[in-house]
Amino acid sequence: MGHRKRHNGAQELTSVEQVAGNGVLHRRALLGRGIMLAGAMGTGVGASGASAAAEPLKNDPWSLETGSVLPPYQVPSRFEKDAIRTRSNPDNEFRTSHARTPHHLLQGTITPNGLFFTICHSGLPDIDPAQHKLVIHGLVKQPLAYTVESLARYPMVTRVHFLECSGNSAPMFSNEPVQATAQALHGLVSNAEWTGVLLSTLLEETGIDPKATWLLAEGTDSLSLHRSVPIKKALDDAMIALYQNGERLMPGTGYPMRLLLPGYQGNMNIKYVRRIKLIDQPAMSFYESKTYSQILPDNKMWLFHFTQEVKSFITYPSFGQTLKGTGFYEVSGIAYSGNGRIAKVMVSADGGKSWAQAALQEPVLPKAFTRFRMPWRWDGTPAVLQSRAWDEAGNVQPTRAEFVAARGQTEKPVASPLAFPNQHYNSITSWGIGKKGEVNHVYV
Amino acid sequence: MGHRKRHNGAQELTSVEQVAGNGVLHRRALLGRGIMLAGAMGTGVGASGASAAAEPLKNDPWSLETGSVLPPYQVPSRFEKDAIRTRSNPDNEFRTSHARTPHHLLQGTITPNGLFFTICHSGLPDIDPAQHKLVIHGLVKQPLAYTVESLARYPMVTRVHFLECSGNSAPMFSNEPVQATAQALHGLVSNAEWTGVLLSTLLEETGIDPKATWLLAEGTDSLSLHRSVPIKKALDDAMIALYQNGERLMPGTGYPMRLLLPGYQGNMNIKYVRRIKLIDQPAMSFYESKTYSQILPDNKMWLFHFTQEVKSFITYPSFGQTLKGTGFYEVSGIAYSGNGRIAKVMVSADGGKSWAQAALQEPVLPKAFTRFRMPWRWDGTPAVLQSRAWDEAGNVQPTRAEFVAARGQTEKPVASPLAFPNQHYNSITSWGIGKKGEVNHVYV
Repeated sequence: MGHRKRHNGAQELTSVEQVAGNGVLHRRALLGRGIMLAGAMGTGVGASGASAAAEPLKNDPWSLETGSVLPPYQVPSRFEKDAIRTRSNPDNEFRTSHARTPHHLLQGTITPNGLFFTICHSGLPDIDPAQHKLVIHGLVKQPLAYTVESLARYPMVTRVHFLECSGNSAPMFSNEPVQATAQALHGLVSNAEWTGVLLSTLLEETGIDPKATWLLAEGTDSLSLHRSVPIKKALDDAMIALYQNGERLMPGTGYPMRLLLPGYQGNMNIKYVRRIKLIDQPAMSFYESKTYSQILPDNKMWLFHFTQEVKSFITYPSFGQTLKGTGFYEVSGIAYSGNGRIAKVMVSADGGKSWAQAALQEPVLPKAFTRFRMPWRWDGTPAVLQSRAWDEAGNVQPTRAEFVAARGQTEKPVASPLAFPNQHYNSITSWGIGKKGEVNHVYV
Repeated sequence: MGHRKRHNGAQELTSVEQVAGNGVLHRRALLGRGIMLAGAMGTGVGASGASAAAEPLKNDPWSLETGSVLPPYQVPSRFEKDAIRTRSNPDNEFRTSHARTPHHLLQGTITPNGLFFTICHSGLPDIDPAQHKLVIHGLVKQPLAYTVESLARYPMVTRVHFLECSGNSAPMFSNEPVQATAQALHGLVSNAEWTGVLLSTLLEETGIDPKATWLLAEGTDSLSLHRSVPIKKALDDAMIALYQNGERLMPGTGYPMRLLLPGYQGNMNIKYVRRIKLIDQPAMSFYESKTYSQILPDNKMWLFHFTQEVKSFITYPSFGQTLKGTGFYEVSGIAYSGNGRIAKVMVSADGGKSWAQAALQEPVLPKAFTRFRMPWRWDGTPAVLQSRAWDEAGNVQPTRAEFVAARGQTEKPVASPLAFPNQHYNSITSWGIGKKGEVNHVYV
């Protein structure tokens, strides 16, 4: 194997167009062959992270012995012990439990089922699907009951959608930046391919009384968690979801069936749904009249603000990671909007002074995670990485100043779940890069 | 709740257009509101599987107690104990191990990571990612070594692709139909969203000697499994995959990194890849010169036939399931091609006498599972369900007669892995529906 010195990147560097301050490179750099990677990465072996391969290939221990048996249901390597959901209630005390998705360790757009976020207000029910029924009743022409088995016969649809707790990112309301990972800050959103029966298909069978304007959906968990949903949404893209990334729903996401309301706040997507009652006014249930309504600076509150607004955050590099030397990095993150497709994502490396447009991973699907990527050359000086998303409905992710003016903030500390406001945070996340490559959460 | 008799479906039935024999309905029936489901489903409550909801809502046991703690990494409900990979070598004897995907129990297009198929020829290696390196050497300008950590900085792509063992569906070579599930027949194919670095990106960095026409990829498993790959494929869409459905690769799919060659036979997609050596001719390794080459009826064999051809099979209803009464069913299955996108899927309910076009779930992605769906009304008489797929390159899934004439078949029994031919089966699968709704595997 050769020891040739790598060609000096300095000359080729000019062919990688810088499109925003502090090293943001043109997004096309990652779409074609003309990336001139060696140039972008610096001058010499190691600056990119690759090293000269002069050492002989060696046999590692696992090359010297037969491996282990294949498991019936496979789980990640034992070396991925950090890629787990962090839990707010590991002793299952008599309160709400959260399990957050480790976005800083994931890539792509699908959240694997093992790591999909869960919130349970009364623990995880252990439901026998053969005993479970969904009853649709109230203002219908004919009330009907559906079992898991009977729903297998119905027309199904498969759609990729994110699901987000409206309390996701609540630590960002703090008036000082909380030093925490993307998992701790934004771990209550996940994205999956859902398969199930459109609720409109079932309502066509039961018939709808013209007086029906809302429905009440109720779960069979011990809390009988229930929420009101406008009938218009029920007839649009609401689904009785049965499968998640191909397999049956996980217990934490509503096994054996849940109401899925694409783009609407997570709590409304009733898990373990046992009845849907068509009604002529909202039920004013606990969770719609209290917990999941955001309080505004003037002490008024928004009721029935269901849509999760356009949002994005960078997952690489992010808090908990450290840059290893100057040179090329691909900045990457996720964007989504409850209003439809992501239209564009802009990225800044200088704290918002200048921006350039990121590449979006195709296919860009409505109400689903979109992975964005932006080539960046770190010169070793402090930088602030930000992303900002637009959706196809024309909404833009607000700056922090805009957001706080409209929606308020809280005094530090904000760890208490009783701190308000704490709902529908969708402003920009800023990661400060220090001289040693360390990443901090900053407000700019 | 009401006991009203459902409106008689007989009148509405005329509005659901039958487009092929034996109850195949127009595919648009499942795309809009005009499905007239009650009509399509028969005349009376229960024919659809739904039942009148006259009984009072009852509180099931799980509604009466607080649930359990949320796990850090969630797994399916204990009631899904059948949704596992079936294993050919559960005692880990000194031979090849297969773990097959339960397609008859899945829906949508993504295969969840827990159920993604695995073949290991020498067990499952337990690799420390911090110790693992990929070396690219041979006919390159500069050999380089890449660690998992260094690859994090590189431009990545996210793409959904199927992966199929070329020995998948080998039982279908039998001259009599093997009575077995879609898992047993077709369980060596799965589909995931992969994220990683294009091999072309790394080869741009190492440089390529113009004499290089092939590469040899080798894994770090104890077998040092290795295969030759044309350099043209390496520069097209080959990827060093690091993530699968968002999380790190599973041990069974190549953790911490594998070569992914979209559309090419599974064995070439070297797992645990530790080196890629650019060479000027194929290496004629064991697996390319023997096991994974198909033997033809004239005792010649095809070498270097890499592409997995266009294929489809119905997963619902399929062997192991039983129809519960006459009326509406949505026939559903998966189609894919190593040559690109699926162009259309035709479905027959009368053993191929008449066909109608199925609805394809969007987005239809290249070299990826496409879910097809076809509304069907079973009248209680025997039926034979079939699917047949076309790809965008103009290839069509062969009939069994065409396939056997060109590629041969084996005498029953065919359980032995030494029975030949056993490679690249892609003909039609036929499910016979009996009078009691039972499903058999048939040849027609």
